[in-house]
Amino acid sequence: MGAPAVDRLEFRGEVTAADINAIRRLVAATGLFNREEIAVAEGLVGERLAKGPASGYEFVIAQREGVMVGYACFGPVAGTQASYDLYWIVAAPQFQRMGIGRRLLGEVERRIAAAGGRRIYAETSGREQYAPTRAFYQRMGFRQEAVLPDFFAPGDDKVIFVKLLRSESRAT
Amino acid sequence: MGAPAVDRLEFRGEVTAADINAIRRLVAATGLFNREEIAVAEGLVGERLAKGPASGYEFVIAQREGVMVGYACFGPVAGTQASYDLYWIVAAPQFQRMGIGRRLLGEVERRIAAAGGRRIYAETSGREQYAPTRAFYQRMGFRQEAVLPDFFAPGDDKVIFVKLLRSESRAT
Repeated sequence: MGAPAVDRLEFRGEVTAADINAIRRLVAATGLFNREEIAVAEGLVGERLAKGPASGYEFVIAQREGVMVGYACFGPVAGTQASYDLYWIVAAPQFQRMGIGRRLLGEVERRIAAAGGRRIYAETSGREQYAPTRAFYQRMGFRQEAVLPDFFAPGDDKVIFVKLLRSESRAT
Repeated sequence: MGAPAVDRLEFRGEVTAADINAIRRLVAATGLFNREEIAVAEGLVGERLAKGPASGYEFVIAQREGVMVGYACFGPVAGTQASYDLYWIVAAPQFQRMGIGRRLLGEVERRIAAAGGRRIYAETSGREQYAPTRAFYQRMGFRQEAVLPDFFAPGDDKVIFVKLLRSESRAT
């Protein structure tokens, strides 16, 4: 909170082949994810590049002076009327606590609402090292919707958050 | 319960291109799934044929005298130690209430346990028309683990079931 907000932040929704490496480095740099998880993050960019919107994966890239400093990946949940999954939201470690996550999420919400989405689900782990992640979702207006005990491994629960988007957006 | 059990039931784990049509017909015949859901069921067979085990989708086909009378699709949940998702389990309408679902599930459990899996998750809808599906899971030893209100649509909740497999299987 004490750190200043990052200025000159720009967002884009298109991904390119060059983003694969940048996203892998960004996810790895957080120290929160193992090799398998990093490969999943990278794989989603590949899916998007190969299949376009039919992949079901949408991206928002945050960059500053041309360098990627964060990204989010989300998409509609097949078979639902208006539910979206937020698969990834990551800020570069050197820019954490500077509002990039909040602004990325705002951009994601704007795009989901524009596409008719009403609910955003985010899943994370109940382990201690994910306490900042869970606190982030709660600060951002998500509520804890369910816990699946031992889902990931014994003692490692899945925690499901949801945020309801307002049906009409207003200037605030 | 009054109907006799189906005899001469055989199971196989390999799918072929010919199964795509048979599975589409089977899923459509239940009357429980819309066009989008039927396309998803069909698509998973295509994924399996294209990518093999790397697809993450395993199948068990139940057949009688060479004709498919039911099938299940399941797979490991990426990023978990020993959790599996049961994506589909379907019996042909003319063979329902004759134990095909129970025997299919037994076959699925046997294969998951052999692969080191310990937990099986099954998701369904909270709507009235899915009451028999929810009752089936409960009869089969699943417990209701979580409910996500309005997940599919307003008034249409997602209900998550889980079944824990025993660490050692015994003859019973």
